[in-house]
Amino acid sequence: MASSPAKAGAHQNFYADYVIQFSYAGADPLGSSDELELLLRKLWEIGLQAEVRPGEDSNLLVFVRASRKRSLKRAVYQSRIRDWLHGVRSSEPEDESSAEPQTESERLRIINDMITLPHDVGGAGITPKHGQWKNVVAVFPLHDEVKNKEYLADWSKKTFLSEEDLDQIRDKFGESVGFYFAFLQSYFRFLLFPAAFGFSCWLLFGSFSTIYAVVNCLWGVIFIEYWKRQEEDLSCRWQTKGVSAVRHKRREFKPEREVQDQITGETRGVFPATTRLQRQLLQVPFALFSAVALGAIIATCFAIEIFISEIYTGPLKTYLVFIPTILLSALIPTMSGVLVSVATRLNDYENYETQTAYDAALTQKIFVINFITSYLPIFLTAFVYIPFASLIVPYLDVFHLTVRPFVSKEDATTIPTFTINPDRLRKQVIYFTVTAQAVGFAMETIVPFLKQRFAREYKEYKKKQTGRTNTGLEGETHDVPKNSYEDHEDEKQFLARVRKEADRDEYNVTDDLREMCIQFGYLALFSPVWPLVPVSFLINNWVELRSDFFKIVVDCKRPSPIRADTIGPWLDTLGFLSWVGSITSAALVYMFNTSADGPSGEPSAIKGWALLLTIFFAEHLYLIVRYVVQAAMAKFEPHSVRHEKTERYMIRKRYLESTLGARSSDDEEEVTPKDESIELSDITRKTLEEDARDWSRHGTNPEERFWMRQKGWRESAKVGSSIIKSQAAGTETKKQQ
Amino acid sequence: MASSPAKAGAHQNFYADYVIQFSYAGADPLGSSDELELLLRKLWEIGLQAEVRPGEDSNLLVFVRASRKRSLKRAVYQSRIRDWLHGVRSSEPEDESSAEPQTESERLRIINDMITLPHDVGGAGITPKHGQWKNVVAVFPLHDEVKNKEYLADWSKKTFLSEEDLDQIRDKFGESVGFYFAFLQSYFRFLLFPAAFGFSCWLLFGSFSTIYAVVNCLWGVIFIEYWKRQEEDLSCRWQTKGVSAVRHKRREFKPEREVQDQITGETRGVFPATTRLQRQLLQVPFALFSAVALGAIIATCFAIEIFISEIYTGPLKTYLVFIPTILLSALIPTMSGVLVSVATRLNDYENYETQTAYDAALTQKIFVINFITSYLPIFLTAFVYIPFASLIVPYLDVFHLTVRPFVSKEDATTIPTFTINPDRLRKQVIYFTVTAQAVGFAMETIVPFLKQRFAREYKEYKKKQTGRTNTGLEGETHDVPKNSYEDHEDEKQFLARVRKEADRDEYNVTDDLREMCIQFGYLALFSPVWPLVPVSFLINNWVELRSDFFKIVVDCKRPSPIRADTIGPWLDTLGFLSWVGSITSAALVYMFNTSADGPSGEPSAIKGWALLLTIFFAEHLYLIVRYVVQAAMAKFEPHSVRHEKTERYMIRKRYLESTLGARSSDDEEEVTPKDESIELSDITRKTLEEDARDWSRHGTNPEERFWMRQKGWRESAKVGSSIIKSQAAGTETKKQQ
Repeated sequence: MASSPAKAGAHQNFYADYVIQFSYAGADPLGSSDELELLLRKLWEIGLQAEVRPGEDSNLLVFVRASRKRSLKRAVYQSRIRDWLHGVRSSEPEDESSAEPQTESERLRIINDMITLPHDVGGAGITPKHGQWKNVVAVFPLHDEVKNKEYLADWSKKTFLSEEDLDQIRDKFGESVGFYFAFLQSYFRFLLFPAAFGFSCWLLFGSFSTIYAVVNCLWGVIFIEYWKRQEEDLSCRWQTKGVSAVRHKRREFKPEREVQDQITGETRGVFPATTRLQRQLLQVPFALFSAVALGAIIATCFAIEIFISEIYTGPLKTYLVFIPTILLSALIPTMSGVLVSVATRLNDYENYETQTAYDAALTQKIFVINFITSYLPIFLTAFVYIPFASLIVPYLDVFHLTVRPFVSKEDATTIPTFTINPDRLRKQVIYFTVTAQAVGFAMETIVPFLKQRFAREYKEYKKKQTGRTNTGLEGETHDVPKNSYEDHEDEKQFLARVRKEADRDEYNVTDDLREMCIQFGYLALFSPVWPLVPVSFLINNWVELRSDFFKIVVDCKRPSPIRADTIGPWLDTLGFLSWVGSITSAALVYMFNTSADGPSGEPSAIKGWALLLTIFFAEHLYLIVRYVVQAAMAKFEPHSVRHEKTERYMIRKRYLESTLGARSSDDEEEVTPKDESIELSDITRKTLEEDARDWSRHGTNPEERFWMRQKGWRESAKVGSSIIKSQAAGTETKKQQ
Repeated sequence: MASSPAKAGAHQNFYADYVIQFSYAGADPLGSSDELELLLRKLWEIGLQAEVRPGEDSNLLVFVRASRKRSLKRAVYQSRIRDWLHGVRSSEPEDESSAEPQTESERLRIINDMITLPHDVGGAGITPKHGQWKNVVAVFPLHDEVKNKEYLADWSKKTFLSEEDLDQIRDKFGESVGFYFAFLQSYFRFLLFPAAFGFSCWLLFGSFSTIYAVVNCLWGVIFIEYWKRQEEDLSCRWQTKGVSAVRHKRREFKPEREVQDQITGETRGVFPATTRLQRQLLQVPFALFSAVALGAIIATCFAIEIFISEIYTGPLKTYLVFIPTILLSALIPTMSGVLVSVATRLNDYENYETQTAYDAALTQKIFVINFITSYLPIFLTAFVYIPFASLIVPYLDVFHLTVRPFVSKEDATTIPTFTINPDRLRKQVIYFTVTAQAVGFAMETIVPFLKQRFAREYKEYKKKQTGRTNTGLEGETHDVPKNSYEDHEDEKQFLARVRKEADRDEYNVTDDLREMCIQFGYLALFSPVWPLVPVSFLINNWVELRSDFFKIVVDCKRPSPIRADTIGPWLDTLGFLSWVGSITSAALVYMFNTSADGPSGEPSAIKGWALLLTIFFAEHLYLIVRYVVQAAMAKFEPHSVRHEKTERYMIRKRYLESTLGARSSDDEEEVTPKDESIELSDITRKTLEEDARDWSRHGTNPEERFWMRQKGWRESAKVGSSIIKSQAAGTETKKQQ
């Protein structure tokens, strides 16, 4: 069963471009049949060939193939024209007859457009899980298993992915996934420096070294600016620059009213920006509520933990210590889940017109939740617990659990001398940057893999049982299938694989990007606490890059290619984190660099004005440096950008030359006879007088006469030089006098 | 002489489009004649008509007129094609034959391009004061005196300029001047609110009111964001959006080496960005030197002033008080002049490729100087003198001039009890925002006007004297001129006016913009000191708008229209000033809001940490508010922008429809006969078996066979629905069991 690998190339997928998963579970058979018929007709109308095969669990698999060359070519051509009109392409596309998809991702993207776009822009209008297509569960391309295995094997041997590797990812999975891997690769490459530097600092200066903090901030600025340029470079290389301008309306968009456009004459749905702004104001209470809800959980668990681990001396301490951890792991995901669903609802309510705008707004909201859950615990330790512990901690014993009931009188005197645990901060940072990363990796890659495998084995086991009863009932004519919905012998293996793929989750690149941004945040915000943070991340990200690819290939459906020219709102997030990092780094270094073991823990030892002055200078220095780095980086054009500019320049030049060429030829024809033939006789008073008489006879007005005094440029030159000469003569006479 | 106004319209200017001022002073007559000949030939070649007339003081006036319709049309067409290729125009320009300049400024701009652009982009390549055209002093159009007077009279009667007024300015003087007036107008309109609010605050709370400071900052943010949108709106209205993309190389650009471009095959001059960056590093010592040099002068004069006015009690105090003012007025302009010339040299050395980049860099450098000279005095008073005076002032008496020599012993004890003058800050702010503005107005508008008038009268007086001797020598045949270079009777008045105009300065819009930005700076930075600042500016700017127009019309040559889509680097300056304003306002309010008369002057009374915390919160609140305002404002599209977008959309739609229309027709033709004709007989086991035999006979591979099982979408639908039905039947049977 496992042997006999599929043939190379597209053949292993039986030329199938897309698979549409159609579910008929729960629905009445008649309605489902009608919907299926409509689906197939729509596909046929748009020029796609379809084959229906049974799937698993009340699913049908509709295999789609762009077999009609002309329809595909037309779709490609249309997409390119659209790109060209939006300025994504610099050159007008060639003729329709020669329009061929250049990459696999372009082919898949265009077929996906053919399937999903509304009819008026040239698609079949099939919208999975939406509107009349509620039974269409998914539309997905099939994995190219041979290539995938090749890449995985190749990458596990090398440190850096080459540009060609990134191009291949992009060719297989589209630009948005390509950008994620390119980002991960750039980030990984850039981490080498802080990892080496951090390690040296850790050896030489230990934690909280000023120089490490400064270099780390600077590195962050340079990395972000570098990535911006890299993004631009890639978007030129992948020809997706400005692709966000080609936007399709969100299907869920609900216009408030229909307005007839005065210019285009179309009626279009309008949702006033003011109404949206009012709805967006709900974000403020939402952010506050999130902060309070999550903050309260975190702060409470934190307080309980400190109380139990450092004050409490009663019975069961060994077990009670785990209470806050259990509480945290139970409450935070629950609360986050609730908040994310609230955020999604809010976002739906804000009713964005385009998917890009919707995603950006949702990203922003989710980032608020992530920011709190990820960084608040460390913030609490660094800026509340350590400086103010001796003030706050005595109040933690609100239930008076500590002293009275359990402790004998002679011990009572020792309780109040509470000392803070200066190692706590470092331990926490190490937890978040090493342990949590490893746990995250397991949860994200290994767990789904195992889960899937078990689910599949369970299914197979169940099927076998049902199958056995079936085989008992019917015959065994296996060479010719007994009816249209049993697998043919030569398709069996293929269909089994497709059914497996149909069963997988959909890949979401945003989650992976978010993970990386949150990771960058730890580096920017807290790495001075423990300079080995970048070393840990370096190792983690080497694995991450491969495991994320593994995840796409093994755990997920193949994603439909989506074009992108940026990693989107996450770029702003990185900039924001780096900025906040300049503040926290300065504060951490100021507060903890005083002695070898950290500050005494007394709030009086930290001078408020000095701390604030440090922050003030650090932040503004950061902003100035960022400005300078931005200005300097702007001077260097990435290779592809220059290339693209030159191309645009060439188009312009050709166009202009064609108009200029026409010009010089007919210019001569027009002017030459008139001007060259002028008699350049001497301009005497006589000729001038003649002119004057001439004009008065013709009755021209002075304005016209003004332009008639000198005939042609030669006469003007003559007049001019005579003025010059006479003036020169005049000055000479004067001089002589 | 003064009566008989010129005829309406262009006639008053004798149809002259441009005047080229050609100087032959100092040069040898032969060389000058040759250059003049070349100039006239070039003009003729490009299709412009020229007439030479004598000017004043060894100048020739070459009148230029685009009389040949075809040349002008071609130039207009070329310019529009260039715009279209750069994306400035959204629609492809119509045919060359119908290309007419739409506005006066377009006509003048295109003729200016014809004169000044290099030959390879279709111009005559005449570059005033540069290269081989050293003798060409100026190229300028002539004022439209009738209209100018009309506008001045009209505007003096109304408060706000209408959009049409701005359009008229743009039509006469081009977009860059248009943008300045539009900015001034928006700023003036926006000042109404802070003027009213400031006046109320002044009545109700006096100086340093928190609410005024907050409102003022918020107003600044909104104003800047509003202006950004306004700018976008105007650039769409005036069709100059993205015009900075159409750039011509700076003539002064010196390439380091010639490089042959691999794609275009052209050799082009290259100046590496790294070299330029290195050269730009010189800005750092320059900025430091400027700060130290100007700072030292200002601080010294300030110290002397305080010493004399508030400590010194010796003789001649009444006169000595003026020393620092005299020193300041003498030293600051001198030092500024030196620094500006250094900045210009630095900028030349940085060797920018385009004029836009050059101007932006120079603006930045000059802004540093302006910032120091304009705001440092107030900074010193507010943040050094008042908080630290009692610490610093005793040291001011370095020369021991005060006590010992002049004061009798009984007075000596009273000297050390120095009290700061809390009113000083307000007085200074009033000086800079009222007195200095009025003085600036006078220096900028009235003085040049009077100077010019006196110079002209002196010239006339002198000419009369020379004229008298001349008339004495020669005859009096005045009806027919005695030689080609004496004015004709009907041109006399016109030529006299042109000679006057040739004598005027060139108008520089950057200086006026800088003045406004510096003014905005006072408002943003220091207005909480004296809430009447906006009232003063409101009045000042009403006058400013008119007087600036008066200045252009009466004191300056008419500027050649320059296209622009923004006020350029000043926009960033405004943003920067507003940001700094959030810091200074917070600091001022914290420091001086404690008591009614300002702080006690003791540095201990101001708590460092509280001050810094105030600043920290104020600044970050400012940044958040700015972010929110930006996000909110981005939602509203200005009218012209929406209009332009719709236009672009229409072009796209038309284009797409033409490809889609072709599509639907030949799609049917291709597919219909093949698919519709399928016999939809029952799919029995027999037909399937037949199919299987068929294929095995033809020897197709399994991949191809996969796509042949279902013929057409109807068969697929049938298969699908039979699967659905059988499944449904299966579940029913199960249920029954």
